[in-house]
Amino acid sequence: MNFIPILDYTSVLVFALSGALVASRQQLDLIGFAFVACLTAVGGGTIRDVLLNRDVVFWIDEPAYILLAVATSVIVFFTAHRLESRMKAIIWADAIALGVAVAAGSGVALKLGHSPIIVVLMGVATGSFGGLMRDVVCNEVPLILKQGELYASAAFAGSLALVMGDTLGVAPIYGYAACCILTLALRAGSIVFGWTLPSYKSRPPRS
Amino acid sequence: MNFIPILDYTSVLVFALSGALVASRQQLDLIGFAFVACLTAVGGGTIRDVLLNRDVVFWIDEPAYILLAVATSVIVFFTAHRLESRMKAIIWADAIALGVAVAAGSGVALKLGHSPIIVVLMGVATGSFGGLMRDVVCNEVPLILKQGELYASAAFAGSLALVMGDTLGVAPIYGYAACCILTLALRAGSIVFGWTLPSYKSRPPRS
Amino acid sequence: MNFIPILDYTSVLVFALSGALVASRQQLDLIGFAFVACLTAVGGGTIRDVLLNRDVVFWIDEPAYILLAVATSVIVFFTAHRLESRMKAIIWADAIALGVAVAAGSGVALKLGHSPIIVVLMGVATGSFGGLMRDVVCNEVPLILKQGELYASAAFAGSLALVMGDTLGVAPIYGYAACCILTLALRAGSIVFGWTLPSYKSRPPRS
Repeated sequence: MNFIPILDYTSVLVFALSGALVASRQQLDLIGFAFVACLTAVGGGTIRDVLLNRDVVFWIDEPAYILLAVATSVIVFFTAHRLESRMKAIIWADAIALGVAVAAGSGVALKLGHSPIIVVLMGVATGSFGGLMRDVVCNEVPLILKQGELYASAAFAGSLALVMGDTLGVAPIYGYAACCILTLALRAGSIVFGWTLPSYKSRPPRS
Repeated sequence: MNFIPILDYTSVLVFALSGALVASRQQLDLIGFAFVACLTAVGGGTIRDVLLNRDVVFWIDEPAYILLAVATSVIVFFTAHRLESRMKAIIWADAIALGVAVAAGSGVALKLGHSPIIVVLMGVATGSFGGLMRDVVCNEVPLILKQGELYASAAFAGSLALVMGDTLGVAPIYGYAACCILTLALRAGSIVFGWTLPSYKSRPPRS
Repeated sequence: MNFIPILDYTSVLVFALSGALVASRQQLDLIGFAFVACLTAVGGGTIRDVLLNRDVVFWIDEPAYILLAVATSVIVFFTAHRLESRMKAIIWADAIALGVAVAAGSGVALKLGHSPIIVVLMGVATGSFGGLMRDVVCNEVPLILKQGELYASAAFAGSLALVMGDTLGVAPIYGYAACCILTLALRAGSIVFGWTLPSYKSRPPRS
C-alpha cells in the first residue's frame, strides 16, 4: 500500500488550516485566504518534487489537493472568529502538519532510492518550507526561528526514525507512524513543557 | 498565432519597471537596479515553468527577455527622479504587469492541457510571484497583502475569464484580452475607488 | 580537469560558515544551525541547477556536500563565541563564498553552452541567492541591499571576466581564478575602502 498520497492529503489539509489562520491575522479577503493556504499547503512538497526532479509536481495532475486547500481556507474564513486563540491554533496546526509532511517528504525520497542523508534532508525540507514560506510572505517571524523551541530538530528526529525503521526492515506503516508521532511529540513537548536543545549562547571573548 | 511570447515580453517590461522603481527606493546602484528588475520581471514566469516542468525556462534560450529587463532598469536609473510619486508609479506598473502576466501564466497552462483549477492557479502564481519576490527581497510589505485591496482576487477573476472563454470556444485573442482587461480593471478599481471584497474581521468570541 | 566540483565544495564550506554565524545571531540550537547552514550553502547552486534544468541538483547524488555544510555548522556552534566580531566574520565569509560561487555558477552555464548573458546571470544568481535566502529567512537585511556597497556589481564583474577569458581562449583555470579574485577584490575594496558605484539618488522634480 502507498501511504504517500494519504500523508500528502493530510499535510495539505492541516497546513492549509495554518495558512488560512495566518491570513486571518493579516485580515485578507477570501481569495487572499485561499492564496496563503495553497502556498503553505503545497509549498514544502513542491520544493521536494522540484529538488528530486520528479516528473510531475504532486498537485499538478491531482487538482484535488488544491481543492482541499481552498475548501479549508473557505471554512476558516467563516469560522476563525470562533477561536479563542488563533495563535495557539496556528502553532498546533503547524505542529501536526509538520509531523505528517516530514513523513511524506522522507517517504518519497526513500522510495526513489536516495541515501539516508538526502532522505532526512527531504523530510526536514518538506516539513518546514511550507510554513517558512507562509511566515516570510506574511511578515511573521518564522516558527522555525523561534528561540528555545524544537522545530527543525523535531523534524530531524522524526525523519531519522523513518530511515532507521527502513534500515531495520520494519514494515513501512510503522516507520511512517513513528516518524509522524515522534516529530509531533517532540514539537508538542516543546510547546507545552518547554523541551529544548541547548541553543547557542554567545559568551564574552576570553581575555 | 501564439500570443504567449507577446504577453511574456510585455509583462517582463512592465514588471522590470516596477522592480527598478522599488530598487530606487532602496537607493541601490545600477547593477542592483538590474538585479531587482530581472528578479521581478522573470520571477513569476520562472515559477510557472519550473512547476509545469517545461523543458526550458522561458528566458534561458531567449536572452532578449533579460536584455529588455536590464535596459528598462537602466532607463529607470537615470529618469526615476523625474517622477512625482514613485510609489504611485510602482503600484500602477505592478497592476498592468499583473494583468498581462496572469494571461501569460494561464495561457501556458491551458496550452499544455491542464485542468481549469491548475490553469487558474498558474495564472495567479505567474502574476503574483514576481512582485512578491521583489517585495520580500526589498523588505517592502508585499502588495498582495495590502488589506482592503483586490490583488489575488483580481488575478483570480481574470484567469477565470480566460478559462471560461476557452470552454465556450471563444477565439484565444478575446480570451487573453478579457483576462488582461478584467484583472487590470478590478485592480484599478480597487486602487482608485477602493473596490474591495469583504475581508476577514475577527469578532469577540461568543460568550 | 573539472574545476566545478572544487568550486562547489569551497563555496558550500564558506557559505555554510556564514549561515551558521547568522544562526548564532538568532540563538538557534544545533539543528537550527545545520538548517540555516545547508540552506545558505546549497541555495544558490540549487537555483542554478533547477533553472538550467540539469538532470540532478548538484548535492542530491553527492551527500558529501551536505555533510560538509553540517560539519561546518557543528564547528561554528561550539567555537563562534571566540570570535571578536561575528558580523565582521559573516561579511567576510560571505564575500569569499560569493567569489567562489560566482565562478561555479558561470562555469556550469558556460559548459552547457549558454549565451554570455545567461552565463553572467547564472554567475550572479548562484553567488547571491544562497546569502539572500539566509538573510530573508533569518530576518536580516540582505547584504545585497546594503546601500553604497558593491555586491551584485562585484559578482557581475567577476562573471564577466570569466566570459571574456573564455571568449579570448584563455585556459579555464585562469578564467576561474580571475573570476574569484576580481569578485572578492571588488567586494573587499568595498568593505574596507568604501569603493562604490554611484547609487540612485532622488532629486526634487524640476520646476
